[in-house]
Amino acid sequence: MNTFSSKLLEAAVNEFSALPGVGKKTALRLVLHLLKQDSSKVSAFSESILRLKNDSKICKVCYNLSDYDVCEICTNPHRQSDLICVVEDIRGVMAIENTQQFRGKFHILGGRISPMEGIGPSDLNIDSLLERVQSIPGGEVILALSPTTEGETTNFYLFKKLNGINVTVTTIARGVSFGDELEYADEITLGRSILNRIPYKVGNS
Amino acid sequence: MNTFSSKLLEAAVNEFSALPGVGKKTALRLVLHLLKQDSSKVSAFSESILRLKNDSKICKVCYNLSDYDVCEICTNPHRQSDLICVVEDIRGVMAIENTQQFRGKFHILGGRISPMEGIGPSDLNIDSLLERVQSIPGGEVILALSPTTEGETTNFYLFKKLNGINVTVTTIARGVSFGDELEYADEITLGRSILNRIPYKVGNS
Repeated sequence: MNTFSSKLLEAAVNEFSALPGVGKKTALRLVLHLLKQDSSKVSAFSESILRLKNDSKICKVCYNLSDYDVCEICTNPHRQSDLICVVEDIRGVMAIENTQQFRGKFHILGGRISPMEGIGPSDLNIDSLLERVQSIPGGEVILALSPTTEGETTNFYLFKKLNGINVTVTTIARGVSFGDELEYADEITLGRSILNRIPYKVGNS
Repeated sequence: MNTFSSKLLEAAVNEFSALPGVGKKTALRLVLHLLKQDSSKVSAFSESILRLKNDSKICKVCYNLSDYDVCEICTNPHRQSDLICVVEDIRGVMAIENTQQFRGKFHILGGRISPMEGIGPSDLNIDSLLERVQSIPGGEVILALSPTTEGETTNFYLFKKLNGINVTVTTIARGVSFGDELEYADEITLGRSILNRIPYKVGNS
């Protein structure tokens, strides 16, 4: 895979294969697919990523990706300002928004504490979170990081930091996924789902 | 996966997920990866595909993708002009070039005959192939399409078409791949490799 008949092709394949999880052969397949499209489609593809990079903004309040200085969730008057859900990145926002169960606002940390990757608390949007939380006395902060070791470490760090502030700190429930067979659930998840058992309600099982 | 906080993000994700084999979640991962890069890197990515589309050419002789009107393989005086290897597309050229075993020239058909996909002989670069072959009397044409049903159909069609012309028509050897266990080779491949057995030579087994 090093014999390109065109330097332009080689350059494009190299760019694509620099994307995560994209090897040289996949990159070539993607590039040849684009090459077969109309010029207008290729321009649209090319411009979409350039416009996103140049014109998108980071919300000044919650650090969400947005087309505006303050994102549409933060400016929405129908959403609770005293309920802040802390997530790692924009994918967390999208996952929770898709459930349509959350009517508060978000705070995007920008990652999780990871000594392995050299990411410490000062690399994350934690100071701004503490500042926001100070302004919602009696409110609630939901820690919604991924249930990994690093996510739990970050949860614990945040919990400690939020300790002196007059807010309720909660975390998303861990438990057996809907539709899971009990015998295939891992022990930690199953153990926690027994410890944190909830009163049975029809329609809530 | 329909709750984008940014229309620009949504547009870019839609463009990426239109690529073959790329779903919405993968597209989001790729786009967020690009978004984290420097502007110059994103520009380079974006321009590479645009330049390829706008500036690359199709070789007038062999239909290979090239940066010039006639590709570097066709203009190379050290390559045999009377040995033409017929391949489906540029990936065939690259695969064969990577072996460094071929010193002739190529002819890119642009696909294979496929009634299922509505591709007939007139959609492929067959007339130009016949014209080229007429000009190399006594030469050789290697049919190197993929060993699929459609590839074999195309091979057969080309063989018929080349029949009246004074050239040798060959095809790439089919057989058990190097390193394969016999018991796992499929019957057609193994059957052919017995029918087309070759004299044993040290270093050629």
